[in-house]
Amino acid sequence: MQELLSEIAKVAEASPDKGEVATYIPELAGVIPDQFGIAVAFEDGRLLTAGDAEVPFSIQSVSKVFALALALGRVGDQLWYRVGREPSGLSFDSILLLEREDGIPRNPFINAGALVTTDTYLAGSNPREALGELLGFIRAAADDDSIHINEKVAQSELTTGHRNFSLAHYLASCGNLRSSVDKVLGTYCHQCGIEMSCRQLAMAGRFLIESANTPPLVAALRRRRINAMMMTCGHYDGSGDFAFRVGLPGKSGVGGGILVIAPGRASIAVWSPGLNRYGNSKLGTEAMEMFAKRTGWSVFG
Amino acid sequence: MQELLSEIAKVAEASPDKGEVATYIPELAGVIPDQFGIAVAFEDGRLLTAGDAEVPFSIQSVSKVFALALALGRVGDQLWYRVGREPSGLSFDSILLLEREDGIPRNPFINAGALVTTDTYLAGSNPREALGELLGFIRAAADDDSIHINEKVAQSELTTGHRNFSLAHYLASCGNLRSSVDKVLGTYCHQCGIEMSCRQLAMAGRFLIESANTPPLVAALRRRRINAMMMTCGHYDGSGDFAFRVGLPGKSGVGGGILVIAPGRASIAVWSPGLNRYGNSKLGTEAMEMFAKRTGWSVFG
Amino acid sequence: MQELLSEIAKVAEASPDKGEVATYIPELAGVIPDQFGIAVAFEDGRLLTAGDAEVPFSIQSVSKVFALALALGRVGDQLWYRVGREPSGLSFDSILLLEREDGIPRNPFINAGALVTTDTYLAGSNPREALGELLGFIRAAADDDSIHINEKVAQSELTTGHRNFSLAHYLASCGNLRSSVDKVLGTYCHQCGIEMSCRQLAMAGRFLIESANTPPLVAALRRRRINAMMMTCGHYDGSGDFAFRVGLPGKSGVGGGILVIAPGRASIAVWSPGLNRYGNSKLGTEAMEMFAKRTGWSVFG
Amino acid sequence: MQELLSEIAKVAEASPDKGEVATYIPELAGVIPDQFGIAVAFEDGRLLTAGDAEVPFSIQSVSKVFALALALGRVGDQLWYRVGREPSGLSFDSILLLEREDGIPRNPFINAGALVTTDTYLAGSNPREALGELLGFIRAAADDDSIHINEKVAQSELTTGHRNFSLAHYLASCGNLRSSVDKVLGTYCHQCGIEMSCRQLAMAGRFLIESANTPPLVAALRRRRINAMMMTCGHYDGSGDFAFRVGLPGKSGVGGGILVIAPGRASIAVWSPGLNRYGNSKLGTEAMEMFAKRTGWSVFG
Repeated sequence: MQELLSEIAKVAEASPDKGEVATYIPELAGVIPDQFGIAVAFEDGRLLTAGDAEVPFSIQSVSKVFALALALGRVGDQLWYRVGREPSGLSFDSILLLEREDGIPRNPFINAGALVTTDTYLAGSNPREALGELLGFIRAAADDDSIHINEKVAQSELTTGHRNFSLAHYLASCGNLRSSVDKVLGTYCHQCGIEMSCRQLAMAGRFLIESANTPPLVAALRRRRINAMMMTCGHYDGSGDFAFRVGLPGKSGVGGGILVIAPGRASIAVWSPGLNRYGNSKLGTEAMEMFAKRTGWSVFG
Repeated sequence: MQELLSEIAKVAEASPDKGEVATYIPELAGVIPDQFGIAVAFEDGRLLTAGDAEVPFSIQSVSKVFALALALGRVGDQLWYRVGREPSGLSFDSILLLEREDGIPRNPFINAGALVTTDTYLAGSNPREALGELLGFIRAAADDDSIHINEKVAQSELTTGHRNFSLAHYLASCGNLRSSVDKVLGTYCHQCGIEMSCRQLAMAGRFLIESANTPPLVAALRRRRINAMMMTCGHYDGSGDFAFRVGLPGKSGVGGGILVIAPGRASIAVWSPGLNRYGNSKLGTEAMEMFAKRTGWSVFG
Repeated sequence: MQELLSEIAKVAEASPDKGEVATYIPELAGVIPDQFGIAVAFEDGRLLTAGDAEVPFSIQSVSKVFALALALGRVGDQLWYRVGREPSGLSFDSILLLEREDGIPRNPFINAGALVTTDTYLAGSNPREALGELLGFIRAAADDDSIHINEKVAQSELTTGHRNFSLAHYLASCGNLRSSVDKVLGTYCHQCGIEMSCRQLAMAGRFLIESANTPPLVAALRRRRINAMMMTCGHYDGSGDFAFRVGLPGKSGVGGGILVIAPGRASIAVWSPGLNRYGNSKLGTEAMEMFAKRTGWSVFG
Repeated sequence: MQELLSEIAKVAEASPDKGEVATYIPELAGVIPDQFGIAVAFEDGRLLTAGDAEVPFSIQSVSKVFALALALGRVGDQLWYRVGREPSGLSFDSILLLEREDGIPRNPFINAGALVTTDTYLAGSNPREALGELLGFIRAAADDDSIHINEKVAQSELTTGHRNFSLAHYLASCGNLRSSVDKVLGTYCHQCGIEMSCRQLAMAGRFLIESANTPPLVAALRRRRINAMMMTCGHYDGSGDFAFRVGLPGKSGVGGGILVIAPGRASIAVWSPGLNRYGNSKLGTEAMEMFAKRTGWSVFG
């Protein structure tokens, strides 16, 4: 397995086309594209890495997985009155369906749905406390208290993230936000600004593996459902393609990270900042396809 | 397990709300709603059933799984130039995205995509021969030469299926059909008119389980990919919900049948003619949710 | 005025970019692009022409104006239960809104709406008779019994017009056609195949001018309403632009003809086969803009 | 004519269904529904009124006409690079097309387009100065220095107008705003908060009549073009219907006012706070239909 990871890292480093680094906030645009890391946290406790697996990166939308777990922990299935469970077939920041469907976002992994999730765990309380709880959840999952929020990234998103402001105000106009737009966006941008390395992210993802050795943060049924949602919605309008090519549930972020779950086996984090046309890590996706092919790991038999 | 199936059948029979039987063709509208069957074909060769598992029904869109396998066998990945792999987020007979996306259907399981799949295995040849090949594939998979097409259902669909004619002409106007509209629709309506019982359908689905004991009709990678597509697209705009609630890849038909695959374990067929608002079997979906909960079978750990 | 028309014809002939001739049926694709004609039929009976004003061309969608008048004459405001009165903001052959709006086309000038109009004046009767009535209306309006249908064009459209077949079947699937799809399309394609010269078309349009000297084929209120519909919907998703630039109600056809009404003054026909990106005659539109600017004719003061 | 206006006012007062008063801001929700006024300012200087023609109301979107004239005066046809000229076929506050068309609003009369217009006359300068200029334009047009902004209404819209905030941030995310979102919205909400009576509004609209006696605020070509835009886009997704029923260019506001232009004849203002399903004054529209029928005034002959 270590050999495989090293080989994957080598192939990635040699790839001539590394995709395009996200430019929508200055902090992300400045990231060096020529980086690749992978980490595998096995259900038995082992952890293997290759490449730049210790370099911290902005997890961005990967945070939506942890936010969803936290929100479900708080309100349970009540969440589904305010957000759907279907793939949207549209880009991560689309506002179109929100109009068609009267302010109920299609799923918790597109930005509009994630804003509702954030509003749910924020629960009308203090953003600082809510973020503290989210960080607490992630740190417990990863068994690592050094995980933190990059304040500069959060501020940068708050200043330039007009699309997210547009989505949040739209939700508010439909009555689908409990806290003020400013509080929700403040919390959301900080949530997206969480920084982790591949090693940390792989560790944090272990609560979604079925195993006696992983932190029991969510019950079995909820774990399966979060995985199901990652499978059908985790890569936006590239979700079908990821399921087809990789065959494992995963959630991507515009910072270039992807968290992938091999149920019963391992939590995998891969990172490379260049993106494909869906806004998912290009080399990360290719690496996971190679990984799945070589290990034969697939939930589909 | 036999006890579980019997219990599931009893719960289904006792259900006060059995959904609405499809009315868009007279032959389907006449089906008695008060029926429910389930069959499980295990990877080791055993087969268990409960309820009306021997009653033949119109498999309708479940046929798209076999058609996809046949078309991939014929042209391989070339198929993906003509049809996508993403959930559509819209109903099974939607034409809207076809306009947005210049005649490339979103996936092979919505009607527009299935017409392209049919056109692919038809390959410009004789509809009778092409249907013979499809039946041959299904009979081999089910190890049952009695499986046949209900000519009356096929004719009924040809006479009243304006929506499918609309889709086919649209595809033709975009240059995405090789055979004539009439040939493609003739073949497609006959394909949809295939009749099987739960027992036969469960048997026919075994080629999608990973097992030494099942018919080796497709290679491992293709099997996984078909399962992946069933997971993300098999229930139209209810696919996310099915993945969330059942956690297994499945494909539904408007006749009330659902084929569900538990990789490495079993092929399951469930049938009840009443439909929910997505056009999927209402009791069938509920039965599969109960089945998944009680067996703990889920690809998501 | 004669000088102005000659000047307009000269400018048109000298134009380096004449647009693209429609290619969707072979009969239209073969038309020589280098032609331009204009004819003005004044309310006092005078008629002036310039350029190729005697050359017959396929009026195509301009026929929808006459078909609308005929259908309104038959069923009056009942028509508006089956077709809307709003601009669609989409191309002439779009099917998208039909799905959104359950088979009620946005207006009678997009293809879907025109099929409903045709179905209305067809009224379940014989296509030949219905077409006879339409031709009768046009011949009376133009005071010219030589106006006829080009059978070759009609047949060509019937063979290759998959988009219109798609629209008609969609309407049928929504229950918004009374006659069979084949009858409606047969009638519609013949209607589109009517051939007229600019001179004939300008003459035929006189019933939409307010004047004591023009044929009293429709009452004043209906005349105004047809003009209103031409203004808001007559150029598909280029209607706003035509109103802005020309300021007179008009209806274009893919054959390159445009019928323009200057209320109280004249009926104007202009023709040049090359189209702009909305499917409206490029030189025809430019000529009308020049005409409106130079005459100062505008309904907007 | 005075008799006609009185009759119209009586019919309106007697109408059992007066529509629904807009509720999206508290200040508008509090307006007494049982009011109706009409004023006609003739090109020769006469002015006739009936009903509550002296009661000031919030002109809301009617302000977009004056804003458009001001913006065109500032940048001319440059404006059309940033906003379209086509009817949108969607509601006044729709964001859907903005996504489809990359941040270029369909026309200056839907909210998204009006925000671009406001940004254009704001021109990066001080909102107070820009509003001063707009008020100056309107006061000159109406020859009435008492016209002013209702600060309470403006503040109310700033606090509760999430939909407009959503639109503005979306435009900003597409790079189609020059000033900050806050400045544009501040200016826009004050613009919408302008208060006028029917008498004042009819007077202010005279610059859009063709006449030697009306203030020469815009050139003839521009006047026609603004009228054209009012005709095709002035009533949102009810524009076709208004053109069909009334036959004169008009612009409505959610406060219940409508400004209608009869080119060469008069500027008409009608007001009644109850709205129809398109967000246009219900009694106002009906009154204008009656007015047009009885006077025979119609741009369509």
